[in-house]
Amino acid sequence: MKVALAQINPVVGDFENNVRKICSFIEQAKKKKGDLVIFPELAVTGYPPKDFLDVPAFVERNLEALNEIKQHVSGIAAIVGFVDKNKHSYGKLVHNAAAFIQDKETVSVHHKSLLPTYDVFDESRYFEPACSIAPIQFNNYTLGISICEDIWNDEEFWARPLYETDPIENFISNGANVIINISASPFTVGKHDAIRLRMLTHDAKKYKVPFVYVNQVGGNDELVFDGSSTVINAQGKLIAQAAAFEEDLIIVDLENSAIQVSPQLFTPIETVQKTLLLGLRDYVAKCGFKKVVIGLSGGIDSAVTAALAVEALGGENVIGVIMPSQFSSPGSVDDAVQLSKNLGIDYKIFFINDLFDGYQTILREEFKGLPFDIAEENLQARIRGNIIMALSNKYGYLVLSTGNKSEMAIGYCTLYGDMSGGLALISDVPKTMVYELAKYLNRKKRIIPQETIDKPPSAELKPNQLDQDSLPPYDILDGILKAYVEESKCIEEIVRMGFDETIVRDIIQKVNRNEYKRRQAAPGIKVTSKAFGSGRRMPIAHKFSGE
Amino acid sequence: MKVALAQINPVVGDFENNVRKICSFIEQAKKKKGDLVIFPELAVTGYPPKDFLDVPAFVERNLEALNEIKQHVSGIAAIVGFVDKNKHSYGKLVHNAAAFIQDKETVSVHHKSLLPTYDVFDESRYFEPACSIAPIQFNNYTLGISICEDIWNDEEFWARPLYETDPIENFISNGANVIINISASPFTVGKHDAIRLRMLTHDAKKYKVPFVYVNQVGGNDELVFDGSSTVINAQGKLIAQAAAFEEDLIIVDLENSAIQVSPQLFTPIETVQKTLLLGLRDYVAKCGFKKVVIGLSGGIDSAVTAALAVEALGGENVIGVIMPSQFSSPGSVDDAVQLSKNLGIDYKIFFINDLFDGYQTILREEFKGLPFDIAEENLQARIRGNIIMALSNKYGYLVLSTGNKSEMAIGYCTLYGDMSGGLALISDVPKTMVYELAKYLNRKKRIIPQETIDKPPSAELKPNQLDQDSLPPYDILDGILKAYVEESKCIEEIVRMGFDETIVRDIIQKVNRNEYKRRQAAPGIKVTSKAFGSGRRMPIAHKFSGE
Repeated sequence: MKVALAQINPVVGDFENNVRKICSFIEQAKKKKGDLVIFPELAVTGYPPKDFLDVPAFVERNLEALNEIKQHVSGIAAIVGFVDKNKHSYGKLVHNAAAFIQDKETVSVHHKSLLPTYDVFDESRYFEPACSIAPIQFNNYTLGISICEDIWNDEEFWARPLYETDPIENFISNGANVIINISASPFTVGKHDAIRLRMLTHDAKKYKVPFVYVNQVGGNDELVFDGSSTVINAQGKLIAQAAAFEEDLIIVDLENSAIQVSPQLFTPIETVQKTLLLGLRDYVAKCGFKKVVIGLSGGIDSAVTAALAVEALGGENVIGVIMPSQFSSPGSVDDAVQLSKNLGIDYKIFFINDLFDGYQTILREEFKGLPFDIAEENLQARIRGNIIMALSNKYGYLVLSTGNKSEMAIGYCTLYGDMSGGLALISDVPKTMVYELAKYLNRKKRIIPQETIDKPPSAELKPNQLDQDSLPPYDILDGILKAYVEESKCIEEIVRMGFDETIVRDIIQKVNRNEYKRRQAAPGIKVTSKAFGSGRRMPIAHKFSGE
Repeated sequence: MKVALAQINPVVGDFENNVRKICSFIEQAKKKKGDLVIFPELAVTGYPPKDFLDVPAFVERNLEALNEIKQHVSGIAAIVGFVDKNKHSYGKLVHNAAAFIQDKETVSVHHKSLLPTYDVFDESRYFEPACSIAPIQFNNYTLGISICEDIWNDEEFWARPLYETDPIENFISNGANVIINISASPFTVGKHDAIRLRMLTHDAKKYKVPFVYVNQVGGNDELVFDGSSTVINAQGKLIAQAAAFEEDLIIVDLENSAIQVSPQLFTPIETVQKTLLLGLRDYVAKCGFKKVVIGLSGGIDSAVTAALAVEALGGENVIGVIMPSQFSSPGSVDDAVQLSKNLGIDYKIFFINDLFDGYQTILREEFKGLPFDIAEENLQARIRGNIIMALSNKYGYLVLSTGNKSEMAIGYCTLYGDMSGGLALISDVPKTMVYELAKYLNRKKRIIPQETIDKPPSAELKPNQLDQDSLPPYDILDGILKAYVEESKCIEEIVRMGFDETIVRDIIQKVNRNEYKRRQAAPGIKVTSKAFGSGRRMPIAHKFSGE
């Protein structure tokens, strides 16, 4: 049997184009002599549709779309992810479903059993789990058709299974000799190799059946789906892997145990870069923008953001804005200009001194006798925010904000200032990883000026300010943040890892106290195992100290 | 048996004070000769603790806190909501639980069966449902101890039960002759009378047993828990109801079928006002603030916000900021000043003309030949945002933003401008309800100037601007928004309700297109059945048109 893995990039709610795309992939799969073409989870609606799943009209349009698709399925069978209505008189109104279509008819419908409800996933919010599951016969095979999380509960592979039942075990004990899994599994660094492939290999070996894994590709708000759809044979050997970070259609003969499509090999930092590129490109396009505007400070965060934007969108679609104040070092402007030239982008310079003086004049009487402090520092960042938003409003540019994860974590950023923007491209990239990205982006030629990389980071909001005056070195900060934010460790455990207790307490208090800033942050692209935003939902008003 | 309903206002993660409060209520209940004192759902941790539930140290502290509480339970029994560990080798790590404590020992632990995972609730994200449930014997009664959602699934009461099982039916068939329910059930207009009381009455009559319902009270971020803990006797008669919107301890003799504590009677608009007051007061206190600062435009939204703030916090803790531009009508400043005087609050006036000119000067070359548009309009709102944030940063005031639900819905508000703030007090109050609130706030004496109420609403960001130039009248707008946002109706259905199709399409497009603004909005206090924020989770990048 030849299976076609149709790794598509649908747009949430864009039924017309999703149908067109799916039909086009069906045609291509037929031309390539596929017996069965397989689409990702919720291919019809795009994933994640979020609360549109509670909107009856959305569900109806999705069913109509599936009907249209059906008419194009002949001479090949198809498995298509869609939203099915729950026919029971209780429970959630819909199922996360796969239609098995043959000769223009839906022969069977398969519901998802395990509904991920953690991190960025909210599936129990919408879906009723499958009541029962059963494999089906096709082409001398017995197919177990599963959906994403359904394969993520093997009790041997996981230290602690999240669910009581294992649908794969169920399929196998009912005679399945191929497991098909349609997924929308978002990227995090290392996940594909360290988890997905290991898990698929383990399961294929355990049950001695091939696993056909078809993942969505593309960016949807914070999430980037990395594709990398995979076929593992019954011996646990990878025999095909589709492209990462782009649409693909691969045909795999399950009877041929040779490697048919070789996996691309990327280093971890390459996968982060490709994730950010795809996430940015899709966010811009799916939101209907064309150009982005970025405030360039001469620092490394804005330089990396701009370099990524140019790679994703082309230099002609990126505008740099340089907004020095009296506290900006001359080098900062030079570095930002040099960066713009290296990138070949338009840049504009606005000196904000006069505006800063203007605010100080207006507030002089009010603030008389009070020292220069965070109020004046933030004002500068907010003046810059206003200017860049004025350009956005005037020309319809999307603003990319440039904060990294380390500063978002501890609130070393200004609400309505440098946090202004429609997408916070690198807000899930820790500062130490920003440096790695810079190095990687400079691998062929110097794009980011060496000065930008070498100089000590500074917000330049008061004279001679350096990040390191108020923060520990970034490798220490990032170590503590990873332990606290990604691994939910308590103060005592983090101190036991070798970090200074005073610093740990200070950092954790800053993380807890700055939830209000993150609540108002632009969405960012998730790259780590625990991103702020929908992946980490904390109260603002609370008194928990972290111990 | 005398039951004590201990309706407390815990703070999330403030274990020390929550324990102290619980112990103090136990003492009071003993003094009042209660046999059993009952605390709300998750009384030990506060509700909702959100992702702190995934933090092992948080769960441990909660268990230690329960242990401390146990030592204070003698001469009375107690039911206390806490987070229990899941002892199974699979599933979520914790249960939402109730401890039944007698003579300093936990006699039994009861897990929640039904986990609400919709609207603002995410319980399947954290909790494993009960494996099994059973009533317990106490004082000649057989108690069915249930937790919140457990009573919300009666198949006669609900057109469509959300869950397959009904824990109450289970308790009754196992001999329970009293149902106890510990809850954290947030306020929405009309919910207590129209749903909770009707449901409790229905269930008590159906099973012929009394229902003892103990609800949390207090504000936690967006949610206000309204208390109103209630006892319904076996004939379905309300025999006691605790205070709404404040802590309370009531003692109810289940053998006495007379009305023992009469319910307070509030009109719907009174309940909205009390919700906003409690939500504001608790947000300010639980976040560690004392004073708030509010931009006063002379319009009705900021006037209502300021009047509520004065009632919640006292006039000495509210500062008004008036920031006229060249487009402000003279009346606006007069109205804002008059309001401040009526409220007895400090106010400051900053003219923003010079700053607006300053931005225009800086952008003159860039914007040469381009018409005055939304870029210049938003600049004014953002200058105001900057000034008010400077005051906040300098003095540690919390900024209250003043946008209403209608404008948040359609994006008639400026990101980083009038949306700036730590709490968007009335962002779930539709404009038509803002007028009702104004009328109510003026019931005894004129607080909000009549001019403010009478004049047509205007953003005053360009000459002679009126809301009604770009929006339909607010009663029509609010009608369409309720149908689309709260009731998930499609365009066709809304048009069939009698609204003009062109207007409906325009409004729905605006709602869909402005999700990006709401994503960056400050939290607001939920008062309607569907609030923006955690109650409505929509993608930003999508192409669904609403039909």
